[in-house]
Amino acid sequence: MLFNQISVIGVGLIGGSMARALKKHDPGIRIVGSGRSMGNLEKALELGVIDAFEQDSASAVKGSDLVIIATPVGTIEQILTEIKDHIGAETIITDVGSTKASIIDAAKAVFGELPPRFIPGHPIAGTENSGVGASFAELFQNRKTILTPLDTCNAAALDKVIRMWEICGAEVIQMSVAHHDEVLAATSHLPHMLAFTLVDTLARLEDHDDIFKYAAGGFNDFTRIASSNPNMWHDICIHNRDALLKMLGRFSDELVQLAKLIEQGNSVEILNLFTRAKQARDEYSCNKIKPANEK
Amino acid sequence: MLFNQISVIGVGLIGGSMARALKKHDPGIRIVGSGRSMGNLEKALELGVIDAFEQDSASAVKGSDLVIIATPVGTIEQILTEIKDHIGAETIITDVGSTKASIIDAAKAVFGELPPRFIPGHPIAGTENSGVGASFAELFQNRKTILTPLDTCNAAALDKVIRMWEICGAEVIQMSVAHHDEVLAATSHLPHMLAFTLVDTLARLEDHDDIFKYAAGGFNDFTRIASSNPNMWHDICIHNRDALLKMLGRFSDELVQLAKLIEQGNSVEILNLFTRAKQARDEYSCNKIKPANEK
Repeated sequence: MLFNQISVIGVGLIGGSMARALKKHDPGIRIVGSGRSMGNLEKALELGVIDAFEQDSASAVKGSDLVIIATPVGTIEQILTEIKDHIGAETIITDVGSTKASIIDAAKAVFGELPPRFIPGHPIAGTENSGVGASFAELFQNRKTILTPLDTCNAAALDKVIRMWEICGAEVIQMSVAHHDEVLAATSHLPHMLAFTLVDTLARLEDHDDIFKYAAGGFNDFTRIASSNPNMWHDICIHNRDALLKMLGRFSDELVQLAKLIEQGNSVEILNLFTRAKQARDEYSCNKIKPANEK
Repeated sequence: MLFNQISVIGVGLIGGSMARALKKHDPGIRIVGSGRSMGNLEKALELGVIDAFEQDSASAVKGSDLVIIATPVGTIEQILTEIKDHIGAETIITDVGSTKASIIDAAKAVFGELPPRFIPGHPIAGTENSGVGASFAELFQNRKTILTPLDTCNAAALDKVIRMWEICGAEVIQMSVAHHDEVLAATSHLPHMLAFTLVDTLARLEDHDDIFKYAAGGFNDFTRIASSNPNMWHDICIHNRDALLKMLGRFSDELVQLAKLIEQGNSVEILNLFTRAKQARDEYSCNKIKPANEK
C-alpha cells in the first residue's frame, strides 16, 4: 500500500472523489475525514467514502502518512496552522487548490518555508456541484493534475503524490507556480467570472423572469459554471488576484473593441474575430481526448 | 395536409430540421430546397430532406403554399427581392431569423409594407453545428418558437404557421418585435459575443497552445457556442445592433465593477454577486423542462 492512513481535510466534491478513487484501488486504506459541516462528514461516513472523522483537523491528521487539504483556498493557512504541531516528521501534505502561489505563501507563513514534504497540487477536474454527495471515484479519469513542487521538495514525497494521482486516473503534469496561476486564470477563473457576471446582469434586468424563460440550450451550457460554489470562487478571486485581473483586463479590452466594431458595422473585423475564435475552439475540441466521465 | 408544397430557402441546420419534421408528420408533402451551396442541396436531396431543389430562390418558390426563409439574417432582403414577383397571392412566407426588427424592415423595404401573409418567426433551438448534415427532425421538440406578427397580419396565415410549428414539436409564443430582440440580445446574442471574445482573447495569448491544453470540462461547455457559424453571427450582430450594444454595455459595466471589487478585495460584494448569480442560475435550471433531445 502506498499509504496506510490518509487524512482528507474537506470531504467535498474533490476530497470525496479522491477518497473514493483511492479506496477503490486499495480497500485496506484507512481514510479519516475532517471538515466544518458535521452533516457532510456523517454523510461521507454513511456513504463509505471515509472510515472515520474528526471535527478538528489537528485530531484528524494524527497517524496519517498523507494529509490532503481539499478545502476552499482561503481556509488553507488556518488549517496548516491547526495541523502544524500534529503531523508526523514523515507525513506528506498536498492540496488541491486552484491557486498555487497564494497557498505556497500561506505554507511559508505558517512553517517559515514550504515544508519539503508539502507538494502543491491542482486537479483540473470538477463539476458545478459541491459536497460529498456529488463526489465519484471516476472524477479524475483522463483528467490532468498539475503539481507545482519547488526545487526544495522531497523527491520521495513528490513521487508518492504523483503515484497517488495516477491511481486516481489522472495524468500528472509539473509546471512552475506562476505558469499554473496564469494558465488557470485564463481557462478557468476568467470563464467563471464571465458566467457569474452574465447571469447576474440578466437577473438584474427588469423583465428577468421573461429573459430566463426564453433562454435556450446554448445558454444552459454557457452558464452552468455560474452554479458553482460562491465561497470557493470568492477565495479563488482573492487568492489569484493579480493573474485574474490581468486576464479580466485583456478580455474587457477585447470586448470593448468588439462593441466598437459592431457600432461601426465593421463587418470584416467582426468576421475575422468570429472566424479566429471558431478555428481555435474547433482545434481545441479536436485535440481534446474526451474523458470517459464527461457528460 | 396543411401545405401541399413548401419551399425551404437555406436547407441548413434549422431549415433542414424543419423539412425533416414536416415530412415525418406528412410524408406526402413536397419540399423544394434552395440555397447557395450546390453540395449542401445535393446532400439534402440524397438524405431525403427535400424532394427537389432549385439554385435560384425565384424558381424554388413557384407553386408553393409556404416559403420558409432559413438563411443568415443578412441575406433575407436579397432573397425577398428575388422571390417577390414569383410567389402566389395566397403564399405564406415565414422566416427563422434571430433578429426580428431588421427582417421586418427588410420586408418593408422590398414590399413597401410587411405583407399580411409574412409571419416573422424564430425557433429558440439550435446547436453549434451547421449544414443539412447536422439537421434532425427532433430539434424543435419541447423548444419554444417565438412569432412576432404585426397587427396587420392575415389571421389564417398566422394560424397555419402556428400549426406548422406545433407539428415540429415546438411551443409557440407570440411577443412584440422589440421585446423579442431585447430578450434574444440578453440570452443568446450576448453569450455568443462573450464566448467568441473569450476564445479569441485566449488564442491571442503568447502561450495559447499551453493555455488550451489545460482547459477543463467547464471551459468546454462554456466555449461550445464559439464554434457557431461566424457568418450567421456576424449578421446577427449587425442586424440586432442596438439591443446587443445595450446588453454588451450593461455586461461590460458589471464586469468592470467585479474587477474593481477583486482589486479592492471586497469580499462581501464579491460573495453577494456570486451568490445572486448562483441562485438565479439554479432557479432557472430548476424551472426549465429538460428537452428530450438535450445532450
